[in-house]
Amino acid sequence: MSIGSGTVGLRTVREANLGVVLRTVRESAPCSRAAVAAATGLNKTTVSSLVADLMARGLIRETGETAQNGVGRPGVLLALDDSSVAALGLEVNVDYLSVVAVDLVQRELTSRHMPFDARAAGPDESARHIVAALREVMADPSVRGRTVVGAGIAVPGLVDAPTGTVRRAPNLGWSDFPLGARTDVLGFPVRVDNDANLGAIAEYRVGSFAGTPDLVYVTGEVGIGAGVLTGGSLLRGAGGFAGELGHLTLGPDGPECSCGRRGCLEASAGIGAILRDAVPDLAPERPLPGADVAALVDATVGRAAAGNGTAVSALERAGTRLGQGLAALVNLVDPGLVLLGGYFVPMGPWLLPSCRTALASGVFAPNTGGCRVEPSSLGLSAAARGGAAGVIHALDSGALPLPEAVDAG
Amino acid sequence: MSIGSGTVGLRTVREANLGVVLRTVRESAPCSRAAVAAATGLNKTTVSSLVADLMARGLIRETGETAQNGVGRPGVLLALDDSSVAALGLEVNVDYLSVVAVDLVQRELTSRHMPFDARAAGPDESARHIVAALREVMADPSVRGRTVVGAGIAVPGLVDAPTGTVRRAPNLGWSDFPLGARTDVLGFPVRVDNDANLGAIAEYRVGSFAGTPDLVYVTGEVGIGAGVLTGGSLLRGAGGFAGELGHLTLGPDGPECSCGRRGCLEASAGIGAILRDAVPDLAPERPLPGADVAALVDATVGRAAAGNGTAVSALERAGTRLGQGLAALVNLVDPGLVLLGGYFVPMGPWLLPSCRTALASGVFAPNTGGCRVEPSSLGLSAAARGGAAGVIHALDSGALPLPEAVDAG
Repeated sequence: MSIGSGTVGLRTVREANLGVVLRTVRESAPCSRAAVAAATGLNKTTVSSLVADLMARGLIRETGETAQNGVGRPGVLLALDDSSVAALGLEVNVDYLSVVAVDLVQRELTSRHMPFDARAAGPDESARHIVAALREVMADPSVRGRTVVGAGIAVPGLVDAPTGTVRRAPNLGWSDFPLGARTDVLGFPVRVDNDANLGAIAEYRVGSFAGTPDLVYVTGEVGIGAGVLTGGSLLRGAGGFAGELGHLTLGPDGPECSCGRRGCLEASAGIGAILRDAVPDLAPERPLPGADVAALVDATVGRAAAGNGTAVSALERAGTRLGQGLAALVNLVDPGLVLLGGYFVPMGPWLLPSCRTALASGVFAPNTGGCRVEPSSLGLSAAARGGAAGVIHALDSGALPLPEAVDAG
Repeated sequence: MSIGSGTVGLRTVREANLGVVLRTVRESAPCSRAAVAAATGLNKTTVSSLVADLMARGLIRETGETAQNGVGRPGVLLALDDSSVAALGLEVNVDYLSVVAVDLVQRELTSRHMPFDARAAGPDESARHIVAALREVMADPSVRGRTVVGAGIAVPGLVDAPTGTVRRAPNLGWSDFPLGARTDVLGFPVRVDNDANLGAIAEYRVGSFAGTPDLVYVTGEVGIGAGVLTGGSLLRGAGGFAGELGHLTLGPDGPECSCGRRGCLEASAGIGAILRDAVPDLAPERPLPGADVAALVDATVGRAAAGNGTAVSALERAGTRLGQGLAALVNLVDPGLVLLGGYFVPMGPWLLPSCRTALASGVFAPNTGGCRVEPSSLGLSAAARGGAAGVIHALDSGALPLPEAVDAG
């Protein structure tokens, strides 16, 4: 039976069922077809057909072992096939590209982090670099030979996810750029999303607090954004623009922001602002195109660790501002957990205490509403990792982009 | 067959199916049992049994008409029974109690609005007043004889909805008060929730913008709170404390707030603050216990309409502050629609222009992210209306608190 031969309705049901079986094997492997049938309520013939399909697509495999479960023939055990497919994730940010490939069990196959001046390159040249970086990862020995099932690309700005258009990314200098369309040459599905949203997905799927349904991931780059998960789902908002934490106005007299307004949180607590305050002799006045942000962050952390007063007090001030911004977020959204990502991670020892103090004093609910603030465990690859994790998650939901197979049933 | 005789699992499935049938009749009435079976995928015998149960509970009725649908016997048409049950809603706020009763089709049966000084009364005496007010509505000729299926009570503060405990309501002076338990004497289920949450539910179910899945309802009382709906569901947050818009800090130098901090939005844009600025010769210095807030609001609106500069500029300033607070909300949550409720409605003509201007200048997404700000059509009864609407909605979800009936099947 060809899978594509049914009606649209049947096709959709079958896709959903493929996802159900894949998810069941992910959760229960190793498990027999009979166990899958019992867990899902699908009948055994249907399960056998779906399993054959998923095997043909390289998503599940027989382990070679059997299990006796009650009477009847012993069941051949199934597991996820971690050798056949790969999902890619990429983040483009002000000063770097980060790329990662993972297998079906979300294990990292390879990752790269490369300095890249996206603002100087401009959107067209950046899109070419992005395509080249993804192809380079596909050629890596750990990925070559696998079927790439899709890629997720993270951009620091407002993204219209359904069309893959970057609406407004002031720190990159991009607006209304159809990045998704520029990646059509790759030949597999590419989703473009906001970097903070993908960071939150990464935390939920593979971070140290994986499985926490209400959490916020905060990007710590030149820009500050928040990816908000409520009940395990991304809070996107009516127009897909939720989570613009960096552009909360803390006061109209604050410094000028890349967005053209004054007093935005990221203009005083984004990495560019921190570096200018913490290592004024090294950091350029404003903004930071072409600067080696990673090296400046290293210098800041080094000086703070050595007790340099300028660096320490700059980090503490930024932590206070960040806590004030997070207080607004916690008052409005009440997440149980806020994870600070990106360059905030190495700066955490000096940022976090003042951040937590300001948060506690700004939150109306008793005891900060129970909300914790912790550093992310995913570092600068969080958003790329979330891009790849989202592709794998989409498979579990039955969105199978692989060529349709003819099953044996 | 007695409904209570099955296992817990079967009981739950039956309850869910009762809700499905009730919802289907709500959406498609008048409709036959066969049409319900076709729409739900349930078999006709099951539908007949569920319909008998719902009729025994006074939730659906036969209209007395029939419809020929294909071959076979003509089907007797069903509709919601709008004569047998009632749901109640009540809001307790700083200066009033508002009570409403609705029927199964969400039509208002009766409503009352009475001045009440909850702060002076204290929580215990207030609870007695609440019970008395609900009993008074039950005795109204439009309600008497109906089965009351439940009540929803709105409180301006942090509420632990599952237990019905008011955690913190500074404008009432209550903390950790088990209001839900105090209403057990009523003999029907009572849910206690935050006033803004219930206002948002009212807007979604019966307001002028009903059906808008992403909206925020803002209470305009002495306190300011936000009820946030995303995708048609309340955003409650990890601890149930989301939406504390009134306690966003606009600046550390702002006026002192009832919560003990400085610079909260409601300390400069809540109704108490507006009245002190707008009609300083009439309004008490601070706070407003015992003041006739409604009369002061009338005076403010009267003077503003007459062009009184003090009143007009006080309202414009409050509108600007409100817009600044809403900008934080829109940047973080991106609702498509914000509805200003309570006393903000009569003040709207002078508040709204400066509010919209401040919002537009504070939102990062282009064109305010497409977000509109409009006055609520539900006035001071919004939260009470939402309390009742929530009870009716719970019926549609299969939470049927009526005594179990023995069906004829």
